[in-house]
Amino acid sequence: MNTITSNNAVIITIGNEILSGKILDTNASYIGKKLGEIGISPVRSISVGDVPSDIQWAVKEACSAADIIICTGGLGPTKDDISKRAVAGYFGRRINVDQEQLRIVEKKFRAVGYNKMPGNNITQAEVPEGAEIFPNSRGTAPGLLIIDGATHFFMLPGVPDEMKGLMTDHIIPYLRNRLQKHEIVLSRTIRTTGIGESRLAELLQPVLGNLDDPEVAFLPDPLGVDVRLTTKGKNREEMLQKIQQIEEDIIQIVSKYVYGYDDDTLESVVGSLLKKHNLTLAIAESCTGGLIGDRVTAVPGSSEYFDRGVITYSNQSKIELLGVDPAALKDKGAVSEEVARQMAEGIREKSGCDIGVATTGIAGPSGGTPEKPVGLVYIALSDKFSAVIRTLQLQGERSRIKQQTTQAALNFIRLRLNDKNLYSN
Amino acid sequence: MNTITSNNAVIITIGNEILSGKILDTNASYIGKKLGEIGISPVRSISVGDVPSDIQWAVKEACSAADIIICTGGLGPTKDDISKRAVAGYFGRRINVDQEQLRIVEKKFRAVGYNKMPGNNITQAEVPEGAEIFPNSRGTAPGLLIIDGATHFFMLPGVPDEMKGLMTDHIIPYLRNRLQKHEIVLSRTIRTTGIGESRLAELLQPVLGNLDDPEVAFLPDPLGVDVRLTTKGKNREEMLQKIQQIEEDIIQIVSKYVYGYDDDTLESVVGSLLKKHNLTLAIAESCTGGLIGDRVTAVPGSSEYFDRGVITYSNQSKIELLGVDPAALKDKGAVSEEVARQMAEGIREKSGCDIGVATTGIAGPSGGTPEKPVGLVYIALSDKFSAVIRTLQLQGERSRIKQQTTQAALNFIRLRLNDKNLYSN
Repeated sequence: MNTITSNNAVIITIGNEILSGKILDTNASYIGKKLGEIGISPVRSISVGDVPSDIQWAVKEACSAADIIICTGGLGPTKDDISKRAVAGYFGRRINVDQEQLRIVEKKFRAVGYNKMPGNNITQAEVPEGAEIFPNSRGTAPGLLIIDGATHFFMLPGVPDEMKGLMTDHIIPYLRNRLQKHEIVLSRTIRTTGIGESRLAELLQPVLGNLDDPEVAFLPDPLGVDVRLTTKGKNREEMLQKIQQIEEDIIQIVSKYVYGYDDDTLESVVGSLLKKHNLTLAIAESCTGGLIGDRVTAVPGSSEYFDRGVITYSNQSKIELLGVDPAALKDKGAVSEEVARQMAEGIREKSGCDIGVATTGIAGPSGGTPEKPVGLVYIALSDKFSAVIRTLQLQGERSRIKQQTTQAALNFIRLRLNDKNLYSN
Repeated sequence: MNTITSNNAVIITIGNEILSGKILDTNASYIGKKLGEIGISPVRSISVGDVPSDIQWAVKEACSAADIIICTGGLGPTKDDISKRAVAGYFGRRINVDQEQLRIVEKKFRAVGYNKMPGNNITQAEVPEGAEIFPNSRGTAPGLLIIDGATHFFMLPGVPDEMKGLMTDHIIPYLRNRLQKHEIVLSRTIRTTGIGESRLAELLQPVLGNLDDPEVAFLPDPLGVDVRLTTKGKNREEMLQKIQQIEEDIIQIVSKYVYGYDDDTLESVVGSLLKKHNLTLAIAESCTGGLIGDRVTAVPGSSEYFDRGVITYSNQSKIELLGVDPAALKDKGAVSEEVARQMAEGIREKSGCDIGVATTGIAGPSGGTPEKPVGLVYIALSDKFSAVIRTLQLQGERSRIKQQTTQAALNFIRLRLNDKNLYSN
């Protein structure tokens, strides 16, 4: 078995539609993450169009920067798919139709009800001379590997599902087996919400100061800021301790904003808290339109604690499904503290759940007034202790307001269940 | 005013966290799209980490491939933000603190309640010698432009909102004013759902055959395939006609799968159909958990036709909110044609809406049985004519199953409202 001595990699994604922004390139990100998990570091990621000379430029630059290159896109059956020829040309390899691969492709088409394979799919059985073939269980274009000196050049289809299947089933195991044991990379992400990047960096300055190892990165996003600690080395125990020490120092300062770690999501953390306290949840959404329900039910097993939700867009539905007082709607308006409270109490009572949460607000772009501008949102939470309400004034587009409201509502549940004066541990 | 004679561009995105896949690079895609709108074509997109030599390699390659370079990331206040120094170094420019910029940054911090600006933010007032400054109304790091010979090198912050604001307010107008009038680019996207890429390409082969102009691209995604027609030239009228002709030929063959064009979304098309027929909609979701509601309410003004939704995750909620027969739940199970039908009829009756749509299925990863595997989904639609039900057997992860079910449910409404035997035009 050949070994790979360098643990640098370059990712190439090919497609006019990537460059022109018609499609968002999610492949490079996925591949970077997967490589990182086995200690391989991408040093560049390059996108070029379906242009042979541009593809060959990318291949040349990639080969001079790393021994491992993962290239996606342009392997499909349509006319704009030219990657295989361009890459084979760079390495001076001829292209042949692989008979076994041809049988596999034909069989796949029969399995989905074709009598005859669409003729353009014969290209999917074309293989550069000497290339290794990795079967694609989710589609017709196989993965390919060209080895040229120290260079390991992988070609994968651009369809994200197929690329992911090939990475997980074949490419990662292949690389893991052949990598010389290099230093390992450990990292830990501390996930926060409700505080901005600058303020977080300032609060953490005494701890992070001129810290070199672990390396610290702030990753802001509209819903929160992740703080990522990364260290490299050979002694896993020492490395873990180093990260843990800093992590504890960070938590001491900003604990209230920290909702989880690594792959935790706010909805998974809320789900775990509900299970821990043996509580059930019901939701009444107006301006969020179902997005809270969507996030809560993104968690496998959420049916254990999530009983139901209602999306009460009209006033009439707020009255019928939640028992909101028509007078409150008339006097205070649908977007008001009073209606938010009645919605949360209403869904809690009618569902018999332990926790009721409600949102009402003006998501825009129209519907705002000087007194109640776009972005004004009320979130209410009702439990056996009381009903509590938060008022937000958000900025941005409709989708952003829905997202931020949803994030704040989930965080509201988290903070409530973490309140030791109410819910003991 | 200097003019720009080449309409090629390179996009550079800087950040370790992009390469490692910790954050998804959406900036390159957005910039590519915006440049395309004014006839500028990105020829490469390059991502590198926060490493001076890698940044300088990217700058060198970019400058040799294009005259317009847009670079994002690494302008923030934290220690890992080193782009400005690396780029200024490449162009041999010193870095100075710009006093006016410093006052602006300090003022921004006072405006959000700081007595004193966090000290690390002084870097946000640092400007490479001779660079032009573009104010950032959404954050503290301004946009910068270094002109070096024919090269126009723009630096923008990596935070997507701030980058977008600068692109729209400053960079695009700047470029538009200075571009020599080149050929224009027109494109048209035909959006389909319910048919695979291979089958679509095969059906369209007689029309698209060896077509060179307009250029055709198939853009598959788990929820549908877009067919994009692009043509370049100087005579807008002729170009429009050319695209229109092919578009008509395509529609003739695959009309039933085409739900819209360009920026249309399936939910916006469904909304327009509901408004056109003056109909109201109510939704009962089980396995989709609120995602249909979220998509329906993503459309501004959806409150005109969307009255309410319920997310009935528990059996009890299906009985209470929709009047589903407990015997049906017991005998047929919550995931059954019968319960789907009762859910759709129930939400229609209880809401008084014209159209009721319901989903019930097994989103996984657990909960499947040999008779009812993960991915089995029923979608029901009830209107004044009848109740109709579709059975799907989907593949993939929980989130994929929720998304595909939502897409199929919206498409179900679209096809129903387009049925000329039921709803006249």
